[in-house]
Amino acid sequence: MTFKALLEKRSIEAWEIYLPHLSIDCVVFGFHEGALKVLLLKMKESDSWGLPGGYILKDENLKIAANRILEARTGATNIYLQQFRVFGETHRSEAAFDYLPDDSFFKQRFISIGFYALVDFTEVEPVVDELSTDCGWRDINRLPELMMDHQFIFDKALETLRKQLIHKPIGYNLLPEKFTMPELQRLYEIILDKKLNRGNFYRKILRYDILIKLDETRKGGAHKAPDLYSFDQEKYKAALKNGLNEIW
Amino acid sequence: MTFKALLEKRSIEAWEIYLPHLSIDCVVFGFHEGALKVLLLKMKESDSWGLPGGYILKDENLKIAANRILEARTGATNIYLQQFRVFGETHRSEAAFDYLPDDSFFKQRFISIGFYALVDFTEVEPVVDELSTDCGWRDINRLPELMMDHQFIFDKALETLRKQLIHKPIGYNLLPEKFTMPELQRLYEIILDKKLNRGNFYRKILRYDILIKLDETRKGGAHKAPDLYSFDQEKYKAALKNGLNEIW
Repeated sequence: MTFKALLEKRSIEAWEIYLPHLSIDCVVFGFHEGALKVLLLKMKESDSWGLPGGYILKDENLKIAANRILEARTGATNIYLQQFRVFGETHRSEAAFDYLPDDSFFKQRFISIGFYALVDFTEVEPVVDELSTDCGWRDINRLPELMMDHQFIFDKALETLRKQLIHKPIGYNLLPEKFTMPELQRLYEIILDKKLNRGNFYRKILRYDILIKLDETRKGGAHKAPDLYSFDQEKYKAALKNGLNEIW
Repeated sequence: MTFKALLEKRSIEAWEIYLPHLSIDCVVFGFHEGALKVLLLKMKESDSWGLPGGYILKDENLKIAANRILEARTGATNIYLQQFRVFGETHRSEAAFDYLPDDSFFKQRFISIGFYALVDFTEVEPVVDELSTDCGWRDINRLPELMMDHQFIFDKALETLRKQLIHKPIGYNLLPEKFTMPELQRLYEIILDKKLNRGNFYRKILRYDILIKLDETRKGGAHKAPDLYSFDQEKYKAALKNGLNEIW
């Protein structure tokens, strides 16, 4: 079956089961070997990459839809997922499907709800489905050309993540269970795209009182073995909910 | 014409011109006489109040739709308007229209995009349209019972406003052009729902460097005439864009 024939077949089913005109796009962040990465996929018969996405079943809660879409794409459950913005410009997606008939589900106008996800890199098995030829991680500093307005959606997700560092903790879901202080600092530096002073970083992050210093060190390096930390899950959750920095 | 007959007539038109299943709900904040207020309306043949809202034309940008809806309801142009969350639970709105036929536009499932607006109280003329019997301001601390999930939508808007105080300035659009420091402090206190220390507030707000101290005082009170301030629009806009409190 050609890709076009496949889409026409899927269109009939889509009209039956999904809400029309509404899509979900997911910006999935993972952290690996000191780099922040994003999950991208390549559609069949297209030269450019895109964010994983999907549609909302007619009788499905929005958040459950986003979870379902991501689980199918990553194999990971228990993903930290947050809606961050709606993309509602006219003509943002139709052109990508201009070879389809006008009544195709996919060629309609779509208003897309953006979710960002923070996942444990090691738990994700990117899935190539019947509509894509590739699915994998890309360093956020070396993104390929993205389809439609997906670069804009990605930029807004990263901007949201940056702003949230002011009043929410980050790291759980992105770092392994045990990590060193330099690894946590590196994560902040990469999201903020700037170097941080080591002493200031330590002082601020310890003041947040969300870390547990473990009775272990990271062995094997050339230098003095660095201390290992993990997040205090109760305090971390409370800080996510109530905010870290009540400056007023 | 009965209300039901009116809605059935409007339904036919709505299917033609609007995107189905998608609505906009607006939480419009105004500040007046030391109180934060929200604009509510009362639907015909309903005992409860609701947020002003509407639908998106098939070929209309999302933000333009929100502006159009608010302009029709308030008469105000140049409103500060911001999307803040999508409300996508199933069965959140259908029951309010259970007396309509199943094919009514209004009785479908709606995913609603929440916008909050900050408006100059004195510039708004609440409009009672053909579907409502009342439209006016209510003190946020004395809200009537709200329809559907509108209390939840309101709560989320207020929560967003509170969080944004950490990294965005507020006051422009809500205060008159010239205001006193106690008036600005009162606005912060009402949004945060707590008393602030006067000295701390002055020091923090002045450090933001967004105010211009005018060469005038507020005359007429019993006490020493307080100094008047206005916002430095350039600096205020820059702070809105870049954030106030880059703690990292």
